[in-house]
Amino acid sequence: MANFQRHLFVCVNDRGPGHPRGCCAQKGSVDVAVAFKRGIHERGLKRVVRANKAGCLDQCERGTTVVVYPEGIWYGGVSVDDVEEIIESHVLGGVPVERLVIPPDELMGIESEGGLLPAIQSGPDGGKPGA
Amino acid sequence: MANFQRHLFVCVNDRGPGHPRGCCAQKGSVDVAVAFKRGIHERGLKRVVRANKAGCLDQCERGTTVVVYPEGIWYGGVSVDDVEEIIESHVLGGVPVERLVIPPDELMGIESEGGLLPAIQSGPDGGKPGA
Repeated sequence: MANFQRHLFVCVNDRGPGHPRGCCAQKGSVDVAVAFKRGIHERGLKRVVRANKAGCLDQCERGTTVVVYPEGIWYGGVSVDDVEEIIESHVLGGVPVERLVIPPDELMGIESEGGLLPAIQSGPDGGKPGA
Repeated sequence: MANFQRHLFVCVNDRGPGHPRGCCAQKGSVDVAVAFKRGIHERGLKRVVRANKAGCLDQCERGTTVVVYPEGIWYGGVSVDDVEEIIESHVLGGVPVERLVIPPDELMGIESEGGLLPAIQSGPDGGKPGA
Protein backbone atom coordinates (compact mmCIF):
# COMPACT_ATOMS: atom_id res chain seq x y z
CA MET A 1 0.00 0.00 0.00
CA ALA A 2 1.07 3.58 -0.45
CA ASN A 3 0.03 7.20 -0.43
CA PHE A 4 -2.69 8.26 -2.85
CA GLN A 5 -1.04 9.47 -6.04
CA ARG A 6 -3.33 12.46 -6.24
CA HIS A 7 -5.69 13.76 -3.58
CA LEU A 8 -8.44 16.23 -4.49
CA PHE A 9 -10.40 18.30 -2.01
CA VAL A 10 -13.67 19.98 -3.00
CA CYS A 11 -14.91 22.79 -0.78
CA VAL A 12 -18.49 22.14 0.36
CA ASN A 13 -18.73 24.97 2.88
CA ASP A 14 -22.27 26.36 3.04
CA ARG A 15 -23.00 29.83 4.42
CA GLY A 16 -26.54 29.79 3.13
CA PRO A 17 -27.94 32.00 0.38
CA GLY A 18 -27.08 35.70 0.14
CA HIS A 19 -23.84 35.77 2.16
CA PRO A 20 -21.57 38.63 0.98
CA ARG A 21 -18.51 36.39 0.44
CA GLY A 22 -20.58 33.65 -1.13
CA CYS A 23 -19.70 30.00 -0.64
CA CYS A 24 -19.04 26.93 -2.70
CA ALA A 25 -22.03 24.86 -1.61
CA GLN A 26 -24.44 27.51 -2.88
CA LYS A 27 -22.70 27.21 -6.26
CA GLY A 28 -23.24 23.47 -6.57
CA SER A 29 -20.02 22.14 -5.04
CA VAL A 30 -21.61 19.06 -3.51
CA ASP A 31 -22.55 17.89 -7.00
CA VAL A 32 -18.98 18.62 -8.14
CA ALA A 33 -17.60 16.45 -5.32
CA VAL A 34 -19.96 13.61 -6.24
CA ALA A 35 -18.93 13.89 -9.91
CA PHE A 36 -15.23 13.63 -9.02
CA LYS A 37 -15.83 10.58 -6.84
CA ARG A 38 -17.89 8.92 -9.56
CA GLY A 39 -15.39 9.71 -12.32
CA ILE A 40 -12.52 8.30 -10.29
CA HIS A 41 -14.38 5.12 -9.37
CA GLU A 42 -15.62 4.55 -12.92
CA ARG A 43 -12.01 4.55 -14.11
CA GLY A 44 -10.97 1.95 -11.56
CA LEU A 45 -8.84 4.49 -9.71
CA LYS A 46 -10.28 3.93 -6.25
CA ARG A 47 -7.33 4.13 -3.81
CA VAL A 48 -5.05 5.42 -6.58
CA VAL A 49 -6.66 8.85 -6.56
CA ARG A 50 -8.97 10.15 -3.85
CA ALA A 51 -11.53 12.94 -3.91
CA ASN A 52 -12.83 14.32 -0.62
CA LYS A 53 -15.25 16.93 0.50
CA ALA A 54 -13.60 19.61 2.65
CA GLY A 55 -14.56 22.54 4.83
CA CYS A 56 -13.98 26.14 3.73
CA LEU A 57 -10.85 26.40 1.57
CA ASP A 58 -10.94 30.21 1.89
CA GLN A 59 -11.17 31.10 -1.80
CA CYS A 60 -14.87 31.80 -1.34
CA GLU A 61 -15.34 34.39 -4.06
CA ARG A 62 -13.90 31.85 -6.53
CA GLY A 63 -16.16 28.92 -5.67
CA THR A 64 -16.53 26.11 -6.48
CA THR A 65 -12.95 25.65 -5.28
CA VAL A 66 -10.94 22.44 -5.73
CA VAL A 67 -7.32 21.86 -4.68
CA VAL A 68 -5.20 18.96 -5.95
CA TYR A 69 -2.28 17.68 -3.85
CA PRO A 70 0.60 16.96 -3.68
CA GLU A 71 1.09 19.47 -6.50
CA GLY A 72 -0.94 22.21 -4.79
CA ILE A 73 -2.82 23.37 -7.86
CA TRP A 74 -6.05 25.23 -7.16
CA TYR A 75 -9.14 25.51 -9.35
CA GLY A 76 -11.91 28.09 -9.06
CA GLY A 77 -15.37 28.27 -10.54
CA VAL A 78 -15.49 24.53 -11.19
CA SER A 79 -18.79 23.13 -12.42
CA VAL A 80 -19.94 19.55 -12.88
CA ASP A 81 -19.30 20.04 -16.59
CA ASP A 82 -15.57 20.64 -15.90
CA VAL A 83 -14.98 17.48 -13.87
CA GLU A 84 -14.27 15.06 -16.71
CA GLU A 85 -11.75 17.48 -18.25
CA ILE A 86 -9.89 17.90 -14.95
CA ILE A 87 -9.77 14.13 -14.42
CA GLU A 88 -8.58 13.36 -17.94
CA SER A 89 -6.15 16.25 -18.42
CA HIS A 90 -4.75 16.82 -14.94
CA VAL A 91 -5.38 13.78 -12.76
CA LEU A 92 -4.55 11.21 -15.42
CA GLY A 93 -2.46 13.23 -17.85
CA GLY A 94 -0.51 15.59 -15.61
CA VAL A 95 -1.62 18.69 -17.55
CA PRO A 96 -3.57 21.23 -15.45
CA VAL A 97 -6.71 22.79 -16.97
CA GLU A 98 -5.29 26.28 -17.27
CA ARG A 99 -8.55 28.14 -17.85
CA LEU A 100 -9.78 27.11 -14.38
CA VAL A 101 -6.53 27.41 -12.42
CA ILE A 102 -6.42 30.15 -9.76
CA PRO A 103 -3.05 31.88 -10.30
CA PRO A 104 -0.83 31.29 -7.24
CA ASP A 105 -0.46 35.02 -6.61
CA GLU A 106 -4.24 35.34 -6.36
CA LEU A 107 -4.66 32.63 -3.71
CA MET A 108 -5.62 33.70 -0.21
CA GLY A 109 -2.51 32.30 1.52
CA ILE A 110 0.23 34.58 2.83
CA GLU A 111 3.82 34.24 3.88
CA SER A 112 4.53 34.45 7.59
CA GLU A 113 6.46 37.42 8.93
CA GLY A 114 9.46 35.15 9.33
CA GLY A 115 9.26 34.01 5.71
CA LEU A 116 8.76 30.45 4.57
CA LEU A 117 8.29 27.66 7.07
CA PRO A 118 11.07 25.05 6.99
CA ALA A 119 10.74 22.14 4.60
CA ILE A 120 10.38 18.67 6.04
CA GLN A 121 13.71 17.55 7.43
CA SER A 122 13.17 13.80 7.31
CA GLY A 123 10.36 11.51 6.25
CA PRO A 124 8.77 8.71 8.27
CA ASP A 125 10.90 6.09 6.51
CA GLY A 126 14.12 8.04 6.57
CA GLY A 127 13.90 10.71 3.96
CA LYS A 128 11.03 9.87 1.67
CA PRO A 129 8.07 11.89 2.90
CA GLY A 130 4.90 10.97 1.12
CA ALA A 131 6.47 8.04 -0.73
CA MET B 1 -0.97 36.30 -1.89
CA ALA B 2 0.14 32.73 -2.31
CA ASN B 3 -0.57 29.09 -1.63
CA PHE B 4 -0.87 28.00 1.99
CA GLN B 5 2.54 26.83 3.16
CA ARG B 6 1.05 23.81 4.87
CA HIS B 7 -2.49 22.48 4.55
CA LEU B 8 -3.83 20.01 7.11
CA PHE B 9 -6.94 17.91 6.65
CA VAL B 10 -8.61 16.21 9.60
CA CYS B 11 -11.02 13.37 8.85
CA VAL B 12 -14.39 14.00 10.48
CA ASN B 13 -16.29 11.15 8.82
CA ASP B 14 -18.95 9.73 11.13
CA ARG B 15 -20.40 6.26 10.62
CA GLY B 16 -22.09 6.27 13.99
CA PRO B 17 -21.18 4.04 16.94
CA GLY B 18 -20.37 0.35 16.51
CA HIS B 19 -19.40 0.31 12.82
CA PRO B 20 -16.91 -2.53 12.11
CA ARG B 21 -14.35 -0.26 10.40
CA GLY B 22 -14.80 2.48 12.97
CA CYS B 23 -14.53 6.13 12.02
CA CYS B 24 -12.65 9.22 13.06
CA ALA B 25 -15.60 11.25 14.34
CA GLN B 26 -16.43 8.59 16.93
CA LYS B 27 -12.85 8.91 18.17
CA GLY B 28 -13.06 12.65 18.78
CA SER B 29 -11.79 14.00 15.47
CA VAL B 30 -14.03 17.06 15.45
CA ASP B 31 -12.31 18.23 18.64
CA VAL B 32 -8.93 17.54 16.99
CA ALA B 33 -9.89 19.71 14.02
CA VAL B 34 -11.00 22.53 16.32
CA ALA B 35 -7.72 22.27 18.27
CA PHE B 36 -5.66 22.57 15.08
CA LYS B 37 -7.62 25.60 13.92
CA ARG B 38 -7.25 27.25 17.32
CA GLY B 39 -3.53 26.49 17.59
CA ILE B 40 -2.86 27.92 14.14
CA HIS B 41 -4.87 31.06 14.77
CA GLU B 42 -3.32 31.64 18.20
CA ARG B 43 0.11 31.68 16.57
CA GLY B 44 -0.92 34.27 14.02
CA LEU B 45 -0.62 31.75 11.20
CA LYS B 46 -4.04 32.29 9.69
CA ARG B 47 -3.59 32.10 5.90
CA VAL B 48 -0.02 30.83 6.32
CA VAL B 49 -1.17 27.39 7.41
CA ARG B 50 -4.70 26.07 7.03
CA ALA B 51 -6.50 23.25 8.82
CA ASN B 52 -9.69 21.86 7.33
CA LYS B 53 -12.20 19.22 8.18
CA ALA B 54 -12.46 16.56 5.47
CA GLY B 55 -14.62 13.61 4.53
CA CYS B 56 -13.41 10.02 4.93
CA LEU B 57 -9.65 9.79 4.33
CA ASP B 58 -9.90 5.97 4.14
CA GLN B 59 -7.52 5.10 6.98
CA CYS B 60 -10.51 4.36 9.19
CA GLU B 61 -8.95 1.78 11.49
CA ARG B 62 -6.22 4.35 12.28
CA GLY B 63 -8.49 7.25 13.23
CA THR B 64 -8.23 10.06 14.08
CA THR B 65 -6.47 10.54 10.76
CA VAL B 66 -4.73 13.78 9.71
CA VAL B 67 -2.84 14.38 6.45
CA VAL B 68 -0.45 17.29 5.91
CA TYR B 69 0.20 18.59 2.40
CA PRO B 70 2.17 19.32 0.29
CA GLU B 71 4.49 16.83 2.00
CA GLY B 72 1.87 14.07 2.13
CA ILE B 73 2.63 12.92 5.65
CA TRP B 74 -0.17 11.03 7.38
CA TYR B 75 -0.90 10.72 11.07
CA GLY B 76 -3.10 8.14 12.77
CA GLY B 77 -4.58 7.93 16.23
CA VAL B 78 -4.25 11.67 16.79
CA SER B 79 -5.80 13.05 19.97
CA VAL B 80 -6.34 16.62 21.10
CA ASP B 81 -3.32 16.15 23.35
CA ASP B 82 -1.10 15.58 20.28
CA VAL B 83 -2.09 18.73 18.40
CA GLU B 84 0.37 21.17 19.99
CA GLU B 85 3.27 18.78 19.37
CA ILE B 86 2.34 18.35 15.68
CA ILE B 87 2.03 22.12 15.23
CA GLU B 88 5.32 22.91 16.97
CA SER B 89 7.43 20.05 15.63
CA HIS B 90 6.05 19.46 12.15
CA VAL B 91 4.06 22.49 11.00
CA LEU B 92 6.48 25.08 12.38
CA GLY B 93 9.69 23.07 12.69
CA GLY B 94 9.57 20.73 9.70
CA VAL B 95 10.12 17.63 11.86
CA PRO B 96 7.28 15.07 11.67
CA VAL B 97 6.09 13.49 14.94
CA GLU B 98 7.35 10.00 14.17
CA ARG B 99 5.39 8.13 16.83
CA LEU B 100 2.11 9.13 15.15
CA VAL B 101 3.12 8.85 11.49
CA ILE B 102 1.39 6.12 9.48
CA PRO B 103 4.21 4.42 7.55
CA PRO B 104 3.75 5.01 3.81
CA ASP B 105 3.61 1.29 3.07
CA GLU B 106 0.69 0.93 5.48
CA LEU B 107 -1.45 3.64 3.87
CA MET B 108 -4.57 2.55 1.99
CA GLY B 109 -3.52 3.97 -1.39
CA ILE B 110 -2.41 1.71 -4.25
CA GLU B 111 -0.54 2.09 -7.49
CA SER B 112 -2.58 1.85 -10.67
CA GLU B 113 -2.08 -1.11 -13.00
CA GLY B 114 -0.20 1.20 -15.32
CA GLY B 115 2.13 2.33 -12.54
CA LEU B 116 2.53 5.87 -11.35
CA LEU B 117 0.45 8.66 -12.83
CA PRO B 118 2.48 11.28 -14.69
CA ALA B 119 3.86 14.22 -12.74
CA ILE B 120 2.57 17.68 -13.51
CA GLN B 121 4.00 18.81 -16.81
CA SER B 122 3.65 22.55 -16.34
CA GLY B 123 2.34 24.83 -13.65
CA PRO B 124 -0.19 27.62 -13.96
CA ASP B 125 2.58 30.22 -14.10
CA GLY B 126 4.86 28.31 -16.39
CA GLY B 127 6.50 25.57 -14.43
CA LYS B 128 6.02 26.40 -10.77
CA PRO B 129 3.01 24.36 -9.67
CA GLY B 130 1.92 25.24 -6.20
CA ALA B 131 4.35 28.15 -5.88
